Amino acid sequence: MQKHIKFFKSLLGDENAHFDDAHRLAYCYDATKKRHLPDGVLYPRDENDVSEILKYCNENKIPIVARGAGSGFTGGALSVNGGLVLALEKHMNKILEIDMQNMVAVVEPGVINMDLQRAVQAVGLFYPPDPASQDYSTIGGNVSENAGGMRAAKYGITKDYVMAIRAVLPNGDIIRAGKRTIKDVAGYNVAGILIASEGTLAVITQITLKLIAKPKMSKTAMGIFADVKTAMNAVYKTMAAGVTPVAMEFLDALCIKAVNDRFNKGLPSEAGAILISDVDGDTETKLDADLAVIRDVFMQNGAIDFKVAKDEAQAADIWFSRRNCSQAINCYGTLKLNEDITVPRSKLPELLDEIEKVSQKYGIKVPCFGHTGDGNVHTNVMVVDKNDEKQVENGHKAIEEIFKIAVDLGGTLSGEHGIGISKAEFMPLAFNEAEMNLFRRIKMAFDPNNILNPGKMGL
Amino acid sequence: MQKHIKFFKSLLGDENAHFDDAHRLAYCYDATKKRHLPDGVLYPRDENDVSEILKYCNENKIPIVARGAGSGFTGGALSVNGGLVLALEKHMNKILEIDMQNMVAVVEPGVINMDLQRAVQAVGLFYPPDPASQDYSTIGGNVSENAGGMRAAKYGITKDYVMAIRAVLPNGDIIRAGKRTIKDVAGYNVAGILIASEGTLAVITQITLKLIAKPKMSKTAMGIFADVKTAMNAVYKTMAAGVTPVAMEFLDALCIKAVNDRFNKGLPSEAGAILISDVDGDTETKLDADLAVIRDVFMQNGAIDFKVAKDEAQAADIWFSRRNCSQAINCYGTLKLNEDITVPRSKLPELLDEIEKVSQKYGIKVPCFGHTGDGNVHTNVMVVDKNDEKQVENGHKAIEEIFKIAVDLGGTLSGEHGIGISKAEFMPLAFNEAEMNLFRRIKMAFDPNNILNPGKMGL
Repeated sequence: MQKHIKFFKSLLGDENAHFDDAHRLAYCYDATKKRHLPDGVLYPRDENDVSEILKYCNENKIPIVARGAGSGFTGGALSVNGGLVLALEKHMNKILEIDMQNMVAVVEPGVINMDLQRAVQAVGLFYPPDPASQDYSTIGGNVSENAGGMRAAKYGITKDYVMAIRAVLPNGDIIRAGKRTIKDVAGYNVAGILIASEGTLAVITQITLKLIAKPKMSKTAMGIFADVKTAMNAVYKTMAAGVTPVAMEFLDALCIKAVNDRFNKGLPSEAGAILISDVDGDTETKLDADLAVIRDVFMQNGAIDFKVAKDEAQAADIWFSRRNCSQAINCYGTLKLNEDITVPRSKLPELLDEIEKVSQKYGIKVPCFGHTGDGNVHTNVMVVDKNDEKQVENGHKAIEEIFKIAVDLGGTLSGEHGIGISKAEFMPLAFNEAEMNLFRRIKMAFDPNNILNPGKMGL
Repeated sequence: MQKHIKFFKSLLGDENAHFDDAHRLAYCYDATKKRHLPDGVLYPRDENDVSEILKYCNENKIPIVARGAGSGFTGGALSVNGGLVLALEKHMNKILEIDMQNMVAVVEPGVINMDLQRAVQAVGLFYPPDPASQDYSTIGGNVSENAGGMRAAKYGITKDYVMAIRAVLPNGDIIRAGKRTIKDVAGYNVAGILIASEGTLAVITQITLKLIAKPKMSKTAMGIFADVKTAMNAVYKTMAAGVTPVAMEFLDALCIKAVNDRFNKGLPSEAGAILISDVDGDTETKLDADLAVIRDVFMQNGAIDFKVAKDEAQAADIWFSRRNCSQAINCYGTLKLNEDITVPRSKLPELLDEIEKVSQKYGIKVPCFGHTGDGNVHTNVMVVDKNDEKQVENGHKAIEEIFKIAVDLGGTLSGEHGIGISKAEFMPLAFNEAEMNLFRRIKMAFDPNNILNPGKMGL
């Protein structure tokens, strides 16, 4: 190890290569609250540093985990096999270019999502992907996990905005994939496979993102339903009616109660479920036409009431409740097993029905909220006492059953959080042996020595 | 070979396994007009047939080329190494499902693009990708080449609509990739890498496509410019002005003259270049607002005139001229070397300038038209006499220079036609050795015996 420390300090300078306990601790966690101490933390200054570091790690078979903000929910940034953390947020955090003519942004991986959103909005452009972590998560992390968000129903997810990537392979090779053009069919779609690869194939050093024109205005509305199933039924009928709301978010009764108790922002306490919908566009007429369609479909499908936010303050209150729901439901237990299963929209009523059955079977509350416009439901199995082994075991059994239900309904283990270590054991529920073997061969094609983020994705 | 013939006839029946000259000839060509005789032609009836066939070919190292309509421009469907053609258009040509609730279609690879467009439009939905070959090319071929089309500026290209793929690996393994959901981040994005892989990685047996609501109406307009450079300048300024036309198509003076001489549909003969623009939406107000923005930007950027088609007949005439341009320009020579380079939109004026220089240098006419809204220009190097070796040589030199110009401007060798054999030799212009090696390792991960469409993409 001393030899390695000497190498990295001489390459990066003392200030960019740290092997002390303070730095190791500072980079040992992520949003899973699990901890895995790395052996050291490196702050590359640029792509060439990344190349030299990877080459050395590859030759010496040292595991290395690229990391942005460490805000992931599935352990993607954890050094489960020791080795080094490649911390990209310190130096490689610049917006390199906002190209108004071609409507693209070029960024380093450590740029924070919201910083990019603000920078492009300042010049009248729009970068839609808005994961809940947008205030702190990085674009590099967003690309590596293919982050989604509230606006996916209308605007898609991170992968829909990645036009080109520069990355470093484990052998130190610097590769470019994609172009600043909508169309590019020369060579394999390497950018496509790097997206959502959780840092296991290459280290992304530069990202070119598509931007769109910023819609001039938006409005927020809320549909109030007696129960979850009726609300879920209205979701897919609305989307199929030809209107495309920016967001179609959902809170169940447990979530509504928790948010009201904690923040008191006036969600309807009598509701069994609510759907929050944003529409956007360039004219008031267009927004009102869209809202009229949504209102009609909601009311024809069992809504008790439909309210359009009177002003920005009221819209902000509604969205505050939605955004802080995850935090509020901690009142239901000391351990939250939260997953982000996704099913085809038409299967949402059945999914929520089945989740309710699991909740009853184990006597565990499972508050649900999420991005129903794209079929993505955040299911939270709330274990009352995290020190009660039996309760925890039941919680994990409930989660496994919920995964099975989602897959059986044609859905996926993860809509936006990734697999990491949290869902690795469930991969065989979703993929057969041929598919898992193909993943392993793809991994080998990029990273034959398995140095990049080893131990993830159930590979 | 007799052993192999016996195997395939017993597996598929005499009617689906052919080794006679008539069948071999019928499947030896594509739109490149090059010919490569396969040893036989197989008509698989379903995915299991494909699996059995590939397994056998893999064990016996028999090259096999999956084929749809054979309408590709780069030789993707040619059996350059002999072996078998796997013809998917005969049996595997069914639209399996149009799911209105989730707005997806599930199709077999042999479905013709226009058949799908018509079927979904009949139920109020819309499948936007519209390659020029839409009347005969298949969805399997569209996915394998990542086909573009006229509507890409607003609606994107084939890859933006592929949600899930079923495919067979060379070892016979059947894999599924992707889901009927907008969000799915479990496992590597295998569907993403199969798109545009030109049949070299797996045989696609089923495709799930995203559909969108059909816009209620559209209008067609034409901007008339004195010269190409002024027109190109107006293109990117229009797109950056916040309006997103469905199409922003371009014809230069040579194309306009050829189309008028041949079809006499009334394009303005005095124009140095025209831009044809479609806008679509749900209300007349929206369309007129978009057209007003386009008119303003055009006129502020040197347009001589701006005309909105008065009725559908006039719009149809304009589009007829555009769609038949490729055919009309054959008047300029007996050999057409047509390429589909693409550059960032802001580089279009420079690109067209440089192409003009190449044209003058070699004394060869290079009529250009194409999808300028997404930077995609069809450049046609017209060799007057295809039997004059010197002229042909100059034509090829001109093409190589044009490729270099496109790549130097941050563009790509191919916006939508693929690499195949036609552009294979130019891959080193666009990719460095590290990138080419990565492509080869990806190919090995899927197809270690190199049986699938060998000899393509410069691998």
